[in-house]
Parts: sequence; C-alpha cells; structure tokens
Amino acid sequence: MALSPPAGTYAVLGHIVDAPQLDVVRGLDEPSLVVVSGSGEIESVHRAGAADAAASLEASGVTVIRLGQRDFLVPGFIDCHVHASQWAYMGTGIDRPLMADDGFLAKYAFPAESALNAQTAGEVYRAAIDDMLRNGTTTALVWGSARLDASEEYVKAVVERGGPRSLIGKVSMDRHCPEGYVETTAQSLADTEAFVLRTKAANDALGLPAGSPPLVAPAITPRFLPTCTAELLRGLGALAEKHDCFVQSHLSESCDELAFSSSLFPGFRSDAAAFAAFGLLRRPSLMAHCVHLQPGEAELLLQHGCAMAHCPTSNFFFAKEALPVRQMLQLGVKVGLGTDVAGGYSPAMLVSLRHAVLASKTLQFRRAKGCATLRDRHNLSHTDGLHLATQAGADALGFGGSLGSFDAGKRFDAVVWAAEGPNVRCYRGGVAEEPSDLLHKLLTNGDDRNIKAVYIGGRRVV
Amino acid sequence: MALSPPAGTYAVLGHIVDAPQLDVVRGLDEPSLVVVSGSGEIESVHRAGAADAAASLEASGVTVIRLGQRDFLVPGFIDCHVHASQWAYMGTGIDRPLMADDGFLAKYAFPAESALNAQTAGEVYRAAIDDMLRNGTTTALVWGSARLDASEEYVKAVVERGGPRSLIGKVSMDRHCPEGYVETTAQSLADTEAFVLRTKAANDALGLPAGSPPLVAPAITPRFLPTCTAELLRGLGALAEKHDCFVQSHLSESCDELAFSSSLFPGFRSDAAAFAAFGLLRRPSLMAHCVHLQPGEAELLLQHGCAMAHCPTSNFFFAKEALPVRQMLQLGVKVGLGTDVAGGYSPAMLVSLRHAVLASKTLQFRRAKGCATLRDRHNLSHTDGLHLATQAGADALGFGGSLGSFDAGKRFDAVVWAAEGPNVRCYRGGVAEEPSDLLHKLLTNGDDRNIKAVYIGGRRVV
Repeated sequence: MALSPPAGTYAVLGHIVDAPQLDVVRGLDEPSLVVVSGSGEIESVHRAGAADAAASLEASGVTVIRLGQRDFLVPGFIDCHVHASQWAYMGTGIDRPLMADDGFLAKYAFPAESALNAQTAGEVYRAAIDDMLRNGTTTALVWGSARLDASEEYVKAVVERGGPRSLIGKVSMDRHCPEGYVETTAQSLADTEAFVLRTKAANDALGLPAGSPPLVAPAITPRFLPTCTAELLRGLGALAEKHDCFVQSHLSESCDELAFSSSLFPGFRSDAAAFAAFGLLRRPSLMAHCVHLQPGEAELLLQHGCAMAHCPTSNFFFAKEALPVRQMLQLGVKVGLGTDVAGGYSPAMLVSLRHAVLASKTLQFRRAKGCATLRDRHNLSHTDGLHLATQAGADALGFGGSLGSFDAGKRFDAVVWAAEGPNVRCYRGGVAEEPSDLLHKLLTNGDDRNIKAVYIGGRRVV
Repeated sequence: MALSPPAGTYAVLGHIVDAPQLDVVRGLDEPSLVVVSGSGEIESVHRAGAADAAASLEASGVTVIRLGQRDFLVPGFIDCHVHASQWAYMGTGIDRPLMADDGFLAKYAFPAESALNAQTAGEVYRAAIDDMLRNGTTTALVWGSARLDASEEYVKAVVERGGPRSLIGKVSMDRHCPEGYVETTAQSLADTEAFVLRTKAANDALGLPAGSPPLVAPAITPRFLPTCTAELLRGLGALAEKHDCFVQSHLSESCDELAFSSSLFPGFRSDAAAFAAFGLLRRPSLMAHCVHLQPGEAELLLQHGCAMAHCPTSNFFFAKEALPVRQMLQLGVKVGLGTDVAGGYSPAMLVSLRHAVLASKTLQFRRAKGCATLRDRHNLSHTDGLHLATQAGADALGFGGSLGSFDAGKRFDAVVWAAEGPNVRCYRGGVAEEPSDLLHKLLTNGDDRNIKAVYIGGRRVV
C-alpha cells in the first residue's frame, strides 16, 4: 500500500469509519471510497458501490490507495485542551493538589512554563507537536506560556511541521503568580494583541485553499479567574471583540479553585457569569473542565455559544468529578475532548477517549435502582468516545462544517489505523474478528504504533 | 549494559525501587545494590554504600550489572486475575452487559473459550504468555477454560517459556452454560482432579530450588455461583482440601450476577457465605471483584484467609463500582490487582495500576464536604498502584514472603524499566527529571516498549 498521496486528486478505499453523532458509527459494514481533491478537500464519499467507483476512478487515471483488511481510516483527532508548555513534566506531578504551595501549579506548571523562552521553547514545542501528530491529533486548542517570544516558537514549529492545525494562546495572567512569572496588566494586553496579529499573519502567509480552516490561529487565553484582574479580563474581552478572536480558559475545575475565584469576584453568581460580564464568553469560545457548575451556568455557556472541553484524565485527579457529557450535548452545549497535558498525563487522544468512557461509567455508580435509566442518561461507548475525539471536537472549536467526519466539502484530515502488532492481537479462527471488533481493539488497546499515516488537508504529515 | 545474568552469583546496581507497603517507596534517593545467587535467590540488598559494595564484589570476581541513569529495577508484576482463555477477544465486547443473551459471556467468553482444544489452545496461550512477560508480569493467577486438554496446553506453554509463574485453573461449571460448553458434575470433578495432579507433577518435574514458589501450580476454579450446582461446589471444596489446593472464583461482581446467584442459593446471606459453606474459602484462596459485598461479607473473607483481586478496568464496565482498596487492606484483607483480561481490555498491569488510581479517585467524588477525610480513606497514588501490582499481589497469592519486593531471601523476579523513548519524554534542563519524576512518567505513560528485561528466579526471560 502506498500511503503517500500523489499530487492532484486521489482516493482511499477500505474501512472508512467515522462517528458523526453519539450512537452512530458509519463505514463498518462495507468498504467505502473517499475522493480527495488536489487542494485537500473531500470531493465525494461513496458508502455503497465503493469498489466499482474505485475501478472507474482508476480507469480515468486517478490513484486509489487501497487500505489493508485490518486497516481503518478515521478522522484526525481533535484535542480541545492541551498545554504544550507543560510537556517537560507530562506524566508526573498529578498526585498533588492544584493550588497548594507545593501543588501542581507552584511546583510543576509555573517552573516548566517560565523556563521557556525564544531559545528553549522550540525543542519542547517540537516534541509536543511530534507527539500529537504521532498519536493522530490533527487539530488542537493549545496553551503556550505567558511569554510572547516563547509562544511564537510554537507557531513557527507548527508552520514548519505542517500540523497539527492549532488554535494557540499566549497565556494572560497578572496576579497571584510567582514573582518572575507574572505580567503587568498593560504588558499582558500588549503582548496578547501582538500575538494575535502575528499569528494571524503567519497563517495568512500560508495561502491555504479557500474554505480551509487555519493551520494556526490565535486564541485569547486568560489563565483562569484567580490569576487575572478585572482590568485584564475586560481588556482581553475587548481584544477578542476587536480581532474576532477565539477565547479559551479554565472554568469550574476544582473546589479549591472555585472557592478562590468566588472570593476574588464576589459580585458574580458563577465563574461563567464573570467571564460573560467581561466579554469573554463568545461564539466561538471554549472553557475547559466545567465540572463544578452552579445551577444555570451550563445554560449561560450555551446561550453565549461557549463550548466545553471534557478532560476526563485530569478531572479524576483535580476536579474529582466527571462531566455529564451526554447530558451537556443533549442540552445543546458543544463538548469536545481534551488530553489536558500536563494535568492529564498522556498526549494520546486515544487515552482521553478511554478515560471519557470510564468517566461516563462513574456517573452510573452507587445507584443500584434505576440502572437502565442511568445508562441511557450517561453512558459513553468507545465509539461515542471516537465521536467526542473527532466531530464533537470540531463542533466545539467552530470547525464542525469543515472537520471531524468524512463528508463531501470537508477537509481531508485523517488517520490510517492498523489493527495489528503486539498490542492488537489477531488469531486464526478468532471469535472477535469482525470489523467492529477490530475497531474496538484499536479503541481500547491501540497506541501510536498502530498509526500508519496521518493526513492534514490531504497532505501526509506522518 | 549487559542484561543477561551470568551463571552463578551476580549483582545489579542502580535505582532499585520497590513499594513494600502503601505510602512507602524505597530506592529513589540513592543507588542500591541487589545480589542474586546462582539459584535465583536475593542474597542481600545494599541500600546504603551500594557503589562501594559493588566495587568489592567486582574485585572478588562477581559480575555487577550497572543500570543506566534513567533505568529502574522494579519487582515483577503479579496479575491476580486474568483469563488466558479469553485472549482472542481482548479489547472488545465490554460495552455489553455481563449476562444478557447477546452479552459478554454468551457472545464472547463462551465462544472464545469453547474454541480452545488441544490443537488450538497452544497458539492463544503462547500469545497470552508472551503478552504477560513483555508487559512485565512475572506471576499470574490464571483462568484456563472448562476443557482439561486445552488447559493443559497452558501448563506446557509456561514450562516451555519459563514464565510467568502461574497458578492456573481449569474452569468448573455444570449448569447455565451453553450446550456444548458445559460439564456434567462428575466429569467436572474428575477433570479437575486430573488437572490438579498433572499440574503439580509438571512443577515437581522442574526440580526448582528449595524455597522457590512454583512455576506452575493448580487452582480449583468454579466459574462463579450461577454456573455451579451445590454438588459441584461441594465436590470442589473436598478436592481443595484433599490436595491442599489454591481456590479462585468470581464474587459479588455485578448486580445482575448477584441477583441470579441469590435466587439459586437462597439459603445463604451472601455469596461468600455460600462459598464458605462448600469449603471453598480457604487459606490461600482468592475471589475476584468483591465489589457489591453484603454487610459482614468482607469480614467473612478475612476470617477464612481469602484474598481479593481488585480489577479496576472491568469494574468500571460490569460492576459499575470501585473496590475501596485502602479500607479493605486496613481491615486486614489481602488485595491484589488483576487485569481481568478479557473483561479488562489490557494485558498490561501498568494499565490496571493506572485504573486502580482512577478508581480510587471515584471514591472521593460527589462529596464536597470532608474531602480531606475521603482522600485519607481512599486515595491511591501511582506508587501505591506499584505496591498493589507487586507486594500486595504476592501477599494475596500467599507468596508474600518470597515475591513482591527486593529483600534478602526472596526470589529475584524483576523488571528493568527505562524512562526513555517516545512515550517518556526527557528534555535538557527539564523541571521534572528527579528519579521520582522519571518513575512517575513510567507509571503513567510507560508501556512494554520501556521494559528492557524481565527476570524470573534470577533467569532472564525477556
């Protein structure tokens, strides 16, 4: 199988699987054919008669990439919350509280972020980018650090590498941070505006095809309420409005954070109400966690078009609660999935997907009566996890019409997954060798070794 | 570094880390030296002055294996609940209920197990053994199938491969199983006794050093109460007594199973009371899951010397509850950790260890008041997970004095772990490069790629 796409139109034939909604998986019953234009757009998808369609295309000179019997083409993963600036300590520090003097922020996050500058950041960000791509992440909503020069290194690295598509924020924070890693309000606003303008310019310079989502775009990124003055928040809201810019922050993550923020902003009924008052709940914007919501807070986010990032791994540790994802989606809120590195330990969306399934089970715990109802209300299967990791993430970032599934008119951001190797076992005469079984084996036990190719905008990047 | 041990006494110098109790990790502060005899016993452990001790040993002609700066020697993992007979469908089927007509047992477990015979079982069991060893499992409490000939293939494969040390059961079940995969009571008892005798003989033929735990040993294995008549259970209890044999089964796993078993055995106050009445709670014995216990049931298990296998992965799916591990250990019950393949999807104890940490967090959910108390009562850190995966498992299987930690007089069952490679990142000037950070990076993000060597009884097997 030649995985490198040729110049011009090409097509892929095989198990082309996506999960456009909860409870829906397409492409498992028979082979499909996806036709990709030279500009990286999906021209057409043939879910019936794919083999015949492939034959006619080949007859007309179009190259058809034929996937193996145990291969799957799935949409690229979309990581809705990831701190690239915390890559150096990924996998450690999470057994501590978030806010204590020797806690996660003080002992790990702030030192790791403040160590990044124009000289040191490139190595860390290139590693983050490699890890994301190697694990099939083709789009991410990314956190840099509070330093402008370091955060610009991320933009450079993405442009150089050709992915993942990144909404990237220089972090803003002007109080309750360590000496030497805190901004003045004025500097924070000036650096944020410079970052917004330069990042937009970097993407404009790429000359992407019309209709393509950006390769890099800025996100206004107040760290969270406790580290931002009202003046900073108001200024960031004005910048978001002025530059029509995506906004991200953390919201209602942990009990200690909530207590602190409500003591700092006593005039608001909830964290969301405070963000809204400063103009920071916009369409599109996204808040990470949203676990300990006040009554009416989810509705307020919905009303402002603000999405949520479900970060199941880190929520087990810091939030000590699971987001009721299915209920939020039914309410109409857009919910994507995030690794939350380094509050989450793994850069692999596959791990987040698995933990989203586990988290959905905890909402069915400890209530022997009415189990069936709880299952209907909360359960997420592993293929629902695939939906969260793809289309739901695209929806949450405002790219639902151009990313997240295999449909004509969308961009071809995709991963070739192989159900083979030491971690996905296969036996002669095995009882679990249907395509849906192989897909589940990948969803539960696959890792970066099973990812044979990654495409962004039709171009192969892994 | 030469990892293959020479004949005769040898020693290992470096980060030699173990977790002999909850909340205790040894060997992180400075290098240690472990000296291994030619028969695979740990002769001595030097936790201070290790470098000097190594130099004198070398001067006297003893080979010293020097671990790398980013290597760790940890005790081999002990998997207290694993169905080797279900390897073919590992990673799929778990989004179904346990007991329904198209549930986990009927659609996956029974077909997979009944497909095993003297011709087909070897391939599956060799794969299971390879996967366990590759993932650092050096001892396991294993389930075969209900067929004698197939289960004997597991014994042969372990003897051939030299590990993992296995307590292995031919499953007994004489009702409520599919036609063609159910035993008569008499046949089940006869085959079980034959399996016990032949497996003991297989181990005796190995001529292991005095004091060594077995490489293979039989376990009496009634599937669970719903598939066993009282006559079968009574007969198995008598066999356990007659041959002084380990007993394992499933206990109080899921609500549907509990309802079924209490309808079949209405005379008993709990599943444990039924097992006890039939002579199947013995010292040593082990019950998997034990999640939905009746009042007094844990105390009954403790009184009979019966251990528990905590199976966090599968418990999220089928039990929909977490075992309060710390509380059970404080009560005095021995609790080991199990992958529960294929109710659990991963053969890697590292994944079970991570899920044990996540499960411990769920016991701290939804109770904003008194968080600190809940943390004290329930929290398991990743190094506590290492304890569960090693010493606690040895204790649960009755091998606590000879396996599970690095102490003089124990067997040298060990894993060399390297904090390197694409999944355990390292940076120049990183903020998280202390030995404890590297260990945590392995505990959270490591996989079989990080396992450089595995030793059983001093002999290298991977």
